[in-house]
Amino acid sequence: MEKVEVKDAGGKLGVMIVGVGGAVASTFIAGTLAVRIGKGLAAGSITQLATIRLGKRNANRFPKIKDVVPLADLGDIVFGGWDIFEENVYEAALHAEVLKKEDLDIVRDGLESIVPIPGVFDREFVRRLNGTHVKPQGTRREYTERLRADIRRFRKENKCDRVVVMWAASTEVYISQSEEHASLSAFERALDNDLAAVISPSMCYAYAAISEGAPFIMGAPNLCVEIPALVELAKMERVPVCGKDYKTGQTLIKTVIAPMLKTRMLGLDGWFSTNILGNRDGEVLDDPGSFRTKEVSKLSVIDTILQPQIYPELYGNIYHKVRINYYPPRKDNKEGWDNIDITGWLGYPMQLKIDFLCRDSILAAPLCLDLVLFSDLALRCGFSGMQTWLSFYFKSPIHDEDSVPEHDLFIQHTILKNTLRRIIGEPTLDYLD
Amino acid sequence: MEKVEVKDAGGKLGVMIVGVGGAVASTFIAGTLAVRIGKGLAAGSITQLATIRLGKRNANRFPKIKDVVPLADLGDIVFGGWDIFEENVYEAALHAEVLKKEDLDIVRDGLESIVPIPGVFDREFVRRLNGTHVKPQGTRREYTERLRADIRRFRKENKCDRVVVMWAASTEVYISQSEEHASLSAFERALDNDLAAVISPSMCYAYAAISEGAPFIMGAPNLCVEIPALVELAKMERVPVCGKDYKTGQTLIKTVIAPMLKTRMLGLDGWFSTNILGNRDGEVLDDPGSFRTKEVSKLSVIDTILQPQIYPELYGNIYHKVRINYYPPRKDNKEGWDNIDITGWLGYPMQLKIDFLCRDSILAAPLCLDLVLFSDLALRCGFSGMQTWLSFYFKSPIHDEDSVPEHDLFIQHTILKNTLRRIIGEPTLDYLD
Amino acid sequence: MEKVEVKDAGGKLGVMIVGVGGAVASTFIAGTLAVRIGKGLAAGSITQLATIRLGKRNANRFPKIKDVVPLADLGDIVFGGWDIFEENVYEAALHAEVLKKEDLDIVRDGLESIVPIPGVFDREFVRRLNGTHVKPQGTRREYTERLRADIRRFRKENKCDRVVVMWAASTEVYISQSEEHASLSAFERALDNDLAAVISPSMCYAYAAISEGAPFIMGAPNLCVEIPALVELAKMERVPVCGKDYKTGQTLIKTVIAPMLKTRMLGLDGWFSTNILGNRDGEVLDDPGSFRTKEVSKLSVIDTILQPQIYPELYGNIYHKVRINYYPPRKDNKEGWDNIDITGWLGYPMQLKIDFLCRDSILAAPLCLDLVLFSDLALRCGFSGMQTWLSFYFKSPIHDEDSVPEHDLFIQHTILKNTLRRIIGEPTLDYLD
Amino acid sequence: MEKVEVKDAGGKLGVMIVGVGGAVASTFIAGTLAVRIGKGLAAGSITQLATIRLGKRNANRFPKIKDVVPLADLGDIVFGGWDIFEENVYEAALHAEVLKKEDLDIVRDGLESIVPIPGVFDREFVRRLNGTHVKPQGTRREYTERLRADIRRFRKENKCDRVVVMWAASTEVYISQSEEHASLSAFERALDNDLAAVISPSMCYAYAAISEGAPFIMGAPNLCVEIPALVELAKMERVPVCGKDYKTGQTLIKTVIAPMLKTRMLGLDGWFSTNILGNRDGEVLDDPGSFRTKEVSKLSVIDTILQPQIYPELYGNIYHKVRINYYPPRKDNKEGWDNIDITGWLGYPMQLKIDFLCRDSILAAPLCLDLVLFSDLALRCGFSGMQTWLSFYFKSPIHDEDSVPEHDLFIQHTILKNTLRRIIGEPTLDYLD
Repeated sequence: MEKVEVKDAGGKLGVMIVGVGGAVASTFIAGTLAVRIGKGLAAGSITQLATIRLGKRNANRFPKIKDVVPLADLGDIVFGGWDIFEENVYEAALHAEVLKKEDLDIVRDGLESIVPIPGVFDREFVRRLNGTHVKPQGTRREYTERLRADIRRFRKENKCDRVVVMWAASTEVYISQSEEHASLSAFERALDNDLAAVISPSMCYAYAAISEGAPFIMGAPNLCVEIPALVELAKMERVPVCGKDYKTGQTLIKTVIAPMLKTRMLGLDGWFSTNILGNRDGEVLDDPGSFRTKEVSKLSVIDTILQPQIYPELYGNIYHKVRINYYPPRKDNKEGWDNIDITGWLGYPMQLKIDFLCRDSILAAPLCLDLVLFSDLALRCGFSGMQTWLSFYFKSPIHDEDSVPEHDLFIQHTILKNTLRRIIGEPTLDYLD
Repeated sequence: MEKVEVKDAGGKLGVMIVGVGGAVASTFIAGTLAVRIGKGLAAGSITQLATIRLGKRNANRFPKIKDVVPLADLGDIVFGGWDIFEENVYEAALHAEVLKKEDLDIVRDGLESIVPIPGVFDREFVRRLNGTHVKPQGTRREYTERLRADIRRFRKENKCDRVVVMWAASTEVYISQSEEHASLSAFERALDNDLAAVISPSMCYAYAAISEGAPFIMGAPNLCVEIPALVELAKMERVPVCGKDYKTGQTLIKTVIAPMLKTRMLGLDGWFSTNILGNRDGEVLDDPGSFRTKEVSKLSVIDTILQPQIYPELYGNIYHKVRINYYPPRKDNKEGWDNIDITGWLGYPMQLKIDFLCRDSILAAPLCLDLVLFSDLALRCGFSGMQTWLSFYFKSPIHDEDSVPEHDLFIQHTILKNTLRRIIGEPTLDYLD
Repeated sequence: MEKVEVKDAGGKLGVMIVGVGGAVASTFIAGTLAVRIGKGLAAGSITQLATIRLGKRNANRFPKIKDVVPLADLGDIVFGGWDIFEENVYEAALHAEVLKKEDLDIVRDGLESIVPIPGVFDREFVRRLNGTHVKPQGTRREYTERLRADIRRFRKENKCDRVVVMWAASTEVYISQSEEHASLSAFERALDNDLAAVISPSMCYAYAAISEGAPFIMGAPNLCVEIPALVELAKMERVPVCGKDYKTGQTLIKTVIAPMLKTRMLGLDGWFSTNILGNRDGEVLDDPGSFRTKEVSKLSVIDTILQPQIYPELYGNIYHKVRINYYPPRKDNKEGWDNIDITGWLGYPMQLKIDFLCRDSILAAPLCLDLVLFSDLALRCGFSGMQTWLSFYFKSPIHDEDSVPEHDLFIQHTILKNTLRRIIGEPTLDYLD
Repeated sequence: MEKVEVKDAGGKLGVMIVGVGGAVASTFIAGTLAVRIGKGLAAGSITQLATIRLGKRNANRFPKIKDVVPLADLGDIVFGGWDIFEENVYEAALHAEVLKKEDLDIVRDGLESIVPIPGVFDREFVRRLNGTHVKPQGTRREYTERLRADIRRFRKENKCDRVVVMWAASTEVYISQSEEHASLSAFERALDNDLAAVISPSMCYAYAAISEGAPFIMGAPNLCVEIPALVELAKMERVPVCGKDYKTGQTLIKTVIAPMLKTRMLGLDGWFSTNILGNRDGEVLDDPGSFRTKEVSKLSVIDTILQPQIYPELYGNIYHKVRINYYPPRKDNKEGWDNIDITGWLGYPMQLKIDFLCRDSILAAPLCLDLVLFSDLALRCGFSGMQTWLSFYFKSPIHDEDSVPEHDLFIQHTILKNTLRRIIGEPTLDYLD
């Protein structure tokens, strides 16, 4: 198999995060700083911990991915970004109450030095928040210009060879794809005409990043980088993009249990999912507009995995309901409870109940790290446009209009690993040995 | 890819079950009879319901497995077998209280006509039961001879072209592998010397089946068909064998959740599994000797999947405990409760709790059907010895001493499907399209 | 202690149910008919099964309540009532899928003979249903007259000495108490002026029942019999009334766990309750107006029990959320999941999670029976107006405006038993012996 | 009602704890020290937080118990005691990992000053521990003499007016009551004859305490202070004693849910309770002998509450199983999972599942405080022998042989409160107002 040409990983890698003071970003940054001085384990991160089997099973070659795939070194990362609140990342992390103070204090200096650039904020898109550290009111075109200038300045000040931009901010209200999103030229006109209702703040960030040659990662379920206009731009600029909606708690479970049902040909009558969470994410999702965006992202999973059109007897009549409840006593410690009504042999019913006492940001942080490193790898491989091989990380993987996304966690994982094998010129696996 | 030569599936297929009056067997038989007259859905059965992707994803070829793989037709199956209680299968099924009377009555005649042959019983191996319909006391060699005669008679009386023998009886007490199991000649000597302590009743059945050219399936966790002596015999006689311990409730979940943790590189501190069940299986497992056999079968799963030797930081110190509790109020409606202590980013703890209200026999029955049909397929393909491509169906897949079993449900599934593709001469998949 | 004068329980007791074809009513009726011919156990019913301690603990007097308290005999009950669907009670019970057909068939004749009288229906009050067996459109005054005529006719045709009317129909949309409810005279004017927005159908039934001297039981959370106008009427007519909202699944648990926290002085940070249910009740509650009525009924419980004003440090800041989800796969088999965030010594947090796989109508049926018999007892005792001693049975016990309701199940139970002791002239208990 | 004569609460109150370095004791002590300087809330403590209703409901008199009942002041308590490990209480509390270091540091000096007296240790009674700070080997009589000397010395050195002795050490192996326990004279002979197999270390402590006029509290399920010999001694010495086995996690729930079932006349088919815990308590209970003692304590609860002899149809055939599993990943954070199989109307089954993520020592600490203060109160009231009014606090309340214990938490609570009312000369409540 032919090896992909990969540019060298040397030099500084700038990581600019939208929502750099949020719970996810601050947990990601603090952890990365701790890991690189040997003060923490990057559990959850494939780039840092996973091995990859090369060759036959009995060849016994299981090197660490980071030892055979040319990834950027953690020591070369420089963090920065935007936020609509002015706290530095240390203060923000204390407020988030995810990591213990004693753990934050290990990297306090590094965190305090990261001070957010004022963010683009439009309350029509995030109704439950009130940004206090925002750019002056401007047109959509002005916003993209200012963001591009931010990226250029950051790159220069920090002597970065490459920059990756990641969205780790709030879920915006639900909007549908419209004609302004259908092509780059239409999108550019909409920018110029300041059509604020169809161009969300997150699209401004994506447009700016791609225009500056920076891969863009969409961590929330917002309609953003998958619109044809931005994919067109990404291809034109030779920039990889990926998204959307980090696969953290309940959907992670769903993309494991649903494939289990399907591989075993067990039927499904209903799936009821409820969540309680008390962080800013929960507060934002308490708004019906933002919830709608999240709900759409969460609902498609089961149908796509189970293929009711192929298996109408087993999956033709599923009642799937997802609820998210803002529940402050829990803070960042999200809890997801699922009830799953299964049918087996001759239609006899069974039930599966899953209670996941998880931590939103703890699960998201290693995904951020992997996505930054793999997006940078993709850039250096010359991959551009949608990176479907990174679907593993997302609740709602972006995809071409004429294909269905892959939601099965294990197939996603096989694709990820086999892509890495292809990049380094190793044979892919079909497990028949 | 070269196509395997497969003999024709025509003619009658005899299915002889050890424990034909048990809850699993009677549920399997009743369902199969109902399905073949169009009165029930074989949910849980891959041979009956699953499709297989052939070619590239966009080729859109998803035929049903049974339409492209030459499997025996359900209409050609003839059921029979042994039991240590004398009830016919209809009476036995009523007592088991798994299927509703109204469902059993649909196939009452077919069930009543199946009357068990007296079984081989040795109370030293199943202490909680008291068989009342057993063969006269004999030496181990005499037992195997009588069982072979049973098979020959059944085959002749029912004009079967081929016979498959399946163990769906109790878990025997724990025994370790000993020198008598190490080679066929040693085993034969032990048979002749009637070394009852090392040759279990289930080994007598396996020996008899293989000697008669019948594939043997071990559904319980007994030490049996994987001993070198019987594998040697199977290869000599060109007979496929598989096992062991049907993967039904809690372990099914385990082989899905553990791979999820590993693909996501989440750490594991502890896994506590408890079961409550009230059927005869639960009663037998209330005996410490039988429980030990089951426990060994259940415990190995996590270590084999998580590879603590490769990932000591994540999986080097797991506390894994499995409890099975006989709890009569539940009858066949087993409940498994798992508590899983996970660690994420920087070692922060999370918990996952899974409550599976399942039905033992409802989950096992479709496995029986698939294993019968695939074992018969393997026989006709000329495969012999251990069939590791059927690991998908077992809690504790049998394997060569110098290899580790594959426990990950999704890799097992890929192996199963890719083996079928190979049998019919189609390219295997690596998902990179 | 002076014994209460109780009229004799002899003669026929008519039980007229609003919603006689609903799941609750049909389960109640079928069970009562079965119990009175010795074909079923009235589990859940205090009048049929419970004992009462009389005298000191060591006196060892524990007679059955029904042996010492003069209750009506089950054999004297005649069932009837109204429904907005025309099925007889046998057909309705089959549709409800609560009791098995084989259990219903035992009393089939009795159930088939109960054919509903057309009901009063106003879609403004129950938006998700579409009644097809309803009285002709009329004014509120006309409705009450027709209902009174129904009661008189039923009483006469069935030669009943006494009649009890019970609401076992849907939850109506939320309405607040208004000036029309403040006195009987205002209410009568509103009836005459047909103020349909403030006089619900359930109020028409209550008004009619009380006017005919029949005790009225409100099983749903509707604003109804507790309004001053109807209490005034009840006192004037010497009729007892009680309500509201049968305490069946989740709230039953709540009125047990909250008192446990309080007696142990454990703090409470949050209580999240979610329900899934798929019967008609669930469908009606999917309408926000009806849900609001239910929510108000369910929310007050915790505050009333925990008294945050007295214990601000423990209960001053509770986040209490109740969700009800229509989930058809479950039919009548409701499931309630509660997560309770507790604090203990020095404020350390703990969690309690309760999953109740219950059956709505199975839990409600024995309450119906007890309430009918105790309401009839109260009538014969000369008690009139609100019967707070029956609070035990209700989620949201009706009460005078200047008192707080008692929600603690165990205090409610003590009150119920001590009231019975008082009725039969026995000393009440304080447990100090 | 006549008021009890209560001696004044003034002067120092010595609290000597057996197992003073254990998780329960160190949490109790640290919390008490913090509370008395206003640095913590004594949640869980009735003496510190609860109010008591005096007079009619509408009289609105709800004073705090500690304001109307003459309890010792927290400021007057002096802590001390024995342990078989030599760490001071600060070190021990750090090891226990119950309270956070930052919380312990608030009262560090106070904790460090408490250094355990060497304990009496006999490995025959606690097989999983290996005491390293123990009294020299001696006869049982010698042990009691040394313990009495310890108490006298402590009382003198700390100028205590009164001393209470509390057992917060391990569960001993199961022993049955024998003739040596039947009378004080027999017990004294056994002491003199050093019959070590029937006189446990905990009995030595109890004997010593009572002989020194100190109330004794048994917090573990050991056979100890309830034996006739020690009750006889307690009455002779005018000393109150109470026990046994603090009602903390799962049994607390059981004594709430079982009464709920009974007051509602719901049937019970089975109750399965499993626990996972990882502290020293869990380690000790991993020994079958100690587990047996605990099991007996836990099993009696349900039968005593549900009275199967009175309600054979509902409770005549309950399958009750209790499991305790040592599971180190959890440390002191015990988890109890209960599955409860209920039956309702006509015998239809329902299930209740309760998962209690609790903290053993956090739940036990306030019980310790209340029991110390109430035992001291009882002493000053002149109460002697078994204090059944304190049953509220115990899993297995000690009781006379000819009476049954009260297990219902709410009746226990009523008894506790009504006893306090009696002590201060207020009328008791029957809730009929």
